[in-house]
Amino acid sequence: MNTYQIDFEPTGKSGKCKGNQSLLDCAHQVGVGIVNICGGHGRCNCCKVQILEGAVSEPTASELKIFSSQEVKKGWRLACQTYPEGDAKLLVPPESMTTMQRLQVEGFEIAVTPDSLVRSYNVCLPAPSMSDLQADVERILGGLNNKRIHCNNIDIEVLKNISHLLRSWDWKAKVFVRGSEVVAIGPQSNRQLGLAVDLGSTKIAAYLIDLESGETLAARGAMNPQFAYGDDIITRLSFVLEKRRGGKLMQKLVIDELNRLLVALCTEVDAQPDEVVEAVIVGNTAMHHLLLKLSVAQLAYAPYIPVVKAALDIKARDLGLAIAPGAYVHILPNIAGFVGADHVAMLLSTKTIWQKEDLALAIDIGTNSEVSLISNGEISTLSCASGPAFEGAEIKDGMRATSGAIERLSISNDAIDYLTIDEAKPAGICGSGILDAVAQLRLAGVVDKSGRMLSNHPRVRNNKGQREFVIVGEGEKNGLPAITITQRDVRAIQLAKGAVRSGVQVLLAAQNRSSEEIKRVIIAGAFGSYIDVSSAMTIGMLPSLPLNRFEQVGNAAGTGAKLALVSRSKVAEAQQIASEVHYTELAAVSDYAKILIEAATIDEY
Amino acid sequence: MNTYQIDFEPTGKSGKCKGNQSLLDCAHQVGVGIVNICGGHGRCNCCKVQILEGAVSEPTASELKIFSSQEVKKGWRLACQTYPEGDAKLLVPPESMTTMQRLQVEGFEIAVTPDSLVRSYNVCLPAPSMSDLQADVERILGGLNNKRIHCNNIDIEVLKNISHLLRSWDWKAKVFVRGSEVVAIGPQSNRQLGLAVDLGSTKIAAYLIDLESGETLAARGAMNPQFAYGDDIITRLSFVLEKRRGGKLMQKLVIDELNRLLVALCTEVDAQPDEVVEAVIVGNTAMHHLLLKLSVAQLAYAPYIPVVKAALDIKARDLGLAIAPGAYVHILPNIAGFVGADHVAMLLSTKTIWQKEDLALAIDIGTNSEVSLISNGEISTLSCASGPAFEGAEIKDGMRATSGAIERLSISNDAIDYLTIDEAKPAGICGSGILDAVAQLRLAGVVDKSGRMLSNHPRVRNNKGQREFVIVGEGEKNGLPAITITQRDVRAIQLAKGAVRSGVQVLLAAQNRSSEEIKRVIIAGAFGSYIDVSSAMTIGMLPSLPLNRFEQVGNAAGTGAKLALVSRSKVAEAQQIASEVHYTELAAVSDYAKILIEAATIDEY
Repeated sequence: MNTYQIDFEPTGKSGKCKGNQSLLDCAHQVGVGIVNICGGHGRCNCCKVQILEGAVSEPTASELKIFSSQEVKKGWRLACQTYPEGDAKLLVPPESMTTMQRLQVEGFEIAVTPDSLVRSYNVCLPAPSMSDLQADVERILGGLNNKRIHCNNIDIEVLKNISHLLRSWDWKAKVFVRGSEVVAIGPQSNRQLGLAVDLGSTKIAAYLIDLESGETLAARGAMNPQFAYGDDIITRLSFVLEKRRGGKLMQKLVIDELNRLLVALCTEVDAQPDEVVEAVIVGNTAMHHLLLKLSVAQLAYAPYIPVVKAALDIKARDLGLAIAPGAYVHILPNIAGFVGADHVAMLLSTKTIWQKEDLALAIDIGTNSEVSLISNGEISTLSCASGPAFEGAEIKDGMRATSGAIERLSISNDAIDYLTIDEAKPAGICGSGILDAVAQLRLAGVVDKSGRMLSNHPRVRNNKGQREFVIVGEGEKNGLPAITITQRDVRAIQLAKGAVRSGVQVLLAAQNRSSEEIKRVIIAGAFGSYIDVSSAMTIGMLPSLPLNRFEQVGNAAGTGAKLALVSRSKVAEAQQIASEVHYTELAAVSDYAKILIEAATIDEY
Repeated sequence: MNTYQIDFEPTGKSGKCKGNQSLLDCAHQVGVGIVNICGGHGRCNCCKVQILEGAVSEPTASELKIFSSQEVKKGWRLACQTYPEGDAKLLVPPESMTTMQRLQVEGFEIAVTPDSLVRSYNVCLPAPSMSDLQADVERILGGLNNKRIHCNNIDIEVLKNISHLLRSWDWKAKVFVRGSEVVAIGPQSNRQLGLAVDLGSTKIAAYLIDLESGETLAARGAMNPQFAYGDDIITRLSFVLEKRRGGKLMQKLVIDELNRLLVALCTEVDAQPDEVVEAVIVGNTAMHHLLLKLSVAQLAYAPYIPVVKAALDIKARDLGLAIAPGAYVHILPNIAGFVGADHVAMLLSTKTIWQKEDLALAIDIGTNSEVSLISNGEISTLSCASGPAFEGAEIKDGMRATSGAIERLSISNDAIDYLTIDEAKPAGICGSGILDAVAQLRLAGVVDKSGRMLSNHPRVRNNKGQREFVIVGEGEKNGLPAITITQRDVRAIQLAKGAVRSGVQVLLAAQNRSSEEIKRVIIAGAFGSYIDVSSAMTIGMLPSLPLNRFEQVGNAAGTGAKLALVSRSKVAEAQQIASEVHYTELAAVSDYAKILIEAATIDEY
């Protein structure tokens, strides 16, 4: 099989590709993130690339369907359907790049003394002889024992190769120990690597960590491929409940993606996946159950019971995760059916912030939003169904936070200013933009307290019986459809922000505290990191407080996963947080309807 | 798919068979042991059966090759190649039946208080509600905690089904706990079953045990299918070292056979394989390594280093054993490269016999023989290469202990009396018969002390330059070939018995004891159970002692496996035995050649 050199523009990365590998596979190998939801089957049409130079395979029937003959002539192809037939150079347009999708691998870093659950020890062992007939395993355990490390167990997968390896390394080895078990061995030159994963329902963030230094060696994001089977959790759970083997498929999709990320991360730092000797994964309770292929029937309906809340240690091979075969995956604990390990991880990583205050609020806003109120170290938590509006869904011109989305917006009289992601031509409006828009409309008096859109502004028009506010008119876009905010969009935001705020109010009421007493508001997650906090206050989604009390912490769940990976005391801390949380089920709060209606008002309070 | 009634004669057993199941599969299901070495691929021609009544599929090409047209007409078929097309009755001839092969499932029984590593507890749990949101796992662990059983771990495979099952059982369950881990759950009506296996290089003995009562519910034997790749261990190890995937194949053969035995045992007592919540397997070190797919390169050559000697607890699923998926397989410890867990199990089960004596000998005779001398509770052990002569191999008219083999023999003047297995027509001579023959020839003065065959008996003749003693002449067998004992056969037995006896002498010398001091000789294993101890003394294989000091204990290794399965204190005892044994490597004994030559003398001493 011939091997070719493939250059990926504009990233500047390049690598070798075999003739039987698709350009998509090659891109993943090289570490160029090309979007791929269907698993490389030419169905999702996400992986469009343009061949700039070089010979490749002929277009397939499915490609000829989606590209015009003009586009085909210009070299447009699906990367998953295209195989090189010589060296080639290709262009990955922004919309095909996962890195453009704000994958939120960035979190804040916390200094922690590295002390992973897995420790490594270098041993130099005597070779066996007629006068020293010790078995290989007893030889290793004896070598550890000399260092006062008492192990009594070697994983069966380690056992299978140990004899050959010890001899090939001339009886010098690095032994990786977890508890009293040897989970991996390597040559003494091996690093001690770990994988931390924040498994979101939309996005997956993965980090390759040096467990000895605690350093993040590489970080990557990818779409959660389950997305193709439902962009919200309920749709995915229904899919699993309705389809035979649905659960198996959901698990496979995620594991395959994790393995791809693993390979890409390792390639970046010139390591092998089996050098990774520990993994930590956090996700919401539904992602957790789908990852482990646990039953979801009891999770999908009231009273929303998880199979398990406790932290789990599972052999990587039992999940199909291709790290060292004897290694464990540590799964942080859940709190409840709709408050998962990702929230625990967020609370873990932000503890240094909230533990200093007598009253702090930590929220992660998404389709389901988790809200924690921490009052003198006591954590009360609930989950509220804020719906998909913040993700741009169910909004007329809503879109995800990708290239061309309006993410910031201001209105002064009839002048509109906006900012798009990548400064591309406006294609729609994403969550943070919608939030701004509603706030600005409220300030401009176009939307009243009750959420009604008035007809007092030249940009308000009637469209099929519904009022809408024109942000980008047809004329401004060379005849392309306009981008507007409709009355219905305002109602969707009202519901979403009302859900979040009502959660805050329920927790405050239970503690007999008022919102003004909150010293610190921690906002985590993809959406929360990009919103304008002032806008969120203007519409009453967040309590009205001095701006310096807010902290937008990025992917704090990912940071929490990294902390647990690097430090066993953080693992214990996470378990303590999860076990101490006081969980409130909103459905059981007696006057919740009243609180929700108040919270839906579009007004600062 | 239609289902048919199949009757198996002469066993009288019958059962249901689907049209897509071969008669071999059906036989295994019903518990009729039909020999099958090739795994049902029509290659080994072991599973010959005769269709007596009923419609079956047409003969395949491979069947037409091995059966004459006359035989085909009479209904002769390979069970693995034949599918029913209606109710049928068939005859399984003795040579096709595994049970005819003296599979040595019989051992002696020892009363032991049942106290398995796995314990079961019945729990009745409250159903979840809006006011009781505990996760399913925490609910179970809480239920156990109420009984003062503190578990902190549930196997991932148990987790996968637990939610559905608990609800279908209305929150009443039997929980199986090993250490601090839940390894299985079942309805409260479930029994607590265990599987004990003696994995011999020739034969496999398997026992289904009720762990609560300690009772053996069913026992079955089968040939070790690895046999097709070498009847001795060295050939099998060479196969693994020379063939790519050889190790994988060896493992698969054994695991598949164990799974077949498991299904057959369970069928006998109307249980499901996943009701089996623990297994114990013992075997020699090579069988142990092939079972676990461990490296054998370092085991096959001096200094014969095992990968591991310590006892192991391995998840059944990691071996592919189809018992409860969260259950463990406990593997008893090895002693050395050629003294395995089967010898430990034998020492464990015979401890009640040897521990009473100040000097006892425990031996297991086979292709490799293990010899232990126990002097005031201190065990010294070695292994000697006695070769395959006792198994009937490398003997001109030798055969395994199956139907038609001469197993007992006496010579008085020129009259010969013999006994064949099943009282069938003599087809050859098996190990115990050869032993008798050499002893009788020695007593009759036909063979001298040095092993030379004299020409002083009318039945001694010269055949192609070699002397041989005619046991069954051509005339006595209607013109079929004669059965004789040749000079070369006597030499083979001399070597084999010399190896065993030299081992005994080396151990005695090391302890400064003489053979007359031995109070008890325990003889274990298939061959040892059937030999005439007097004959073994006559040729000097065993020390000359009063007959009442000998005890033939049958499959003591199998009994040891059962004990470890039923009792955790026996597991600990086995570990203690293995760790305390003083192992002697014969190759390192300085005057071994001298001892071996003395031991090869055919004389009582």
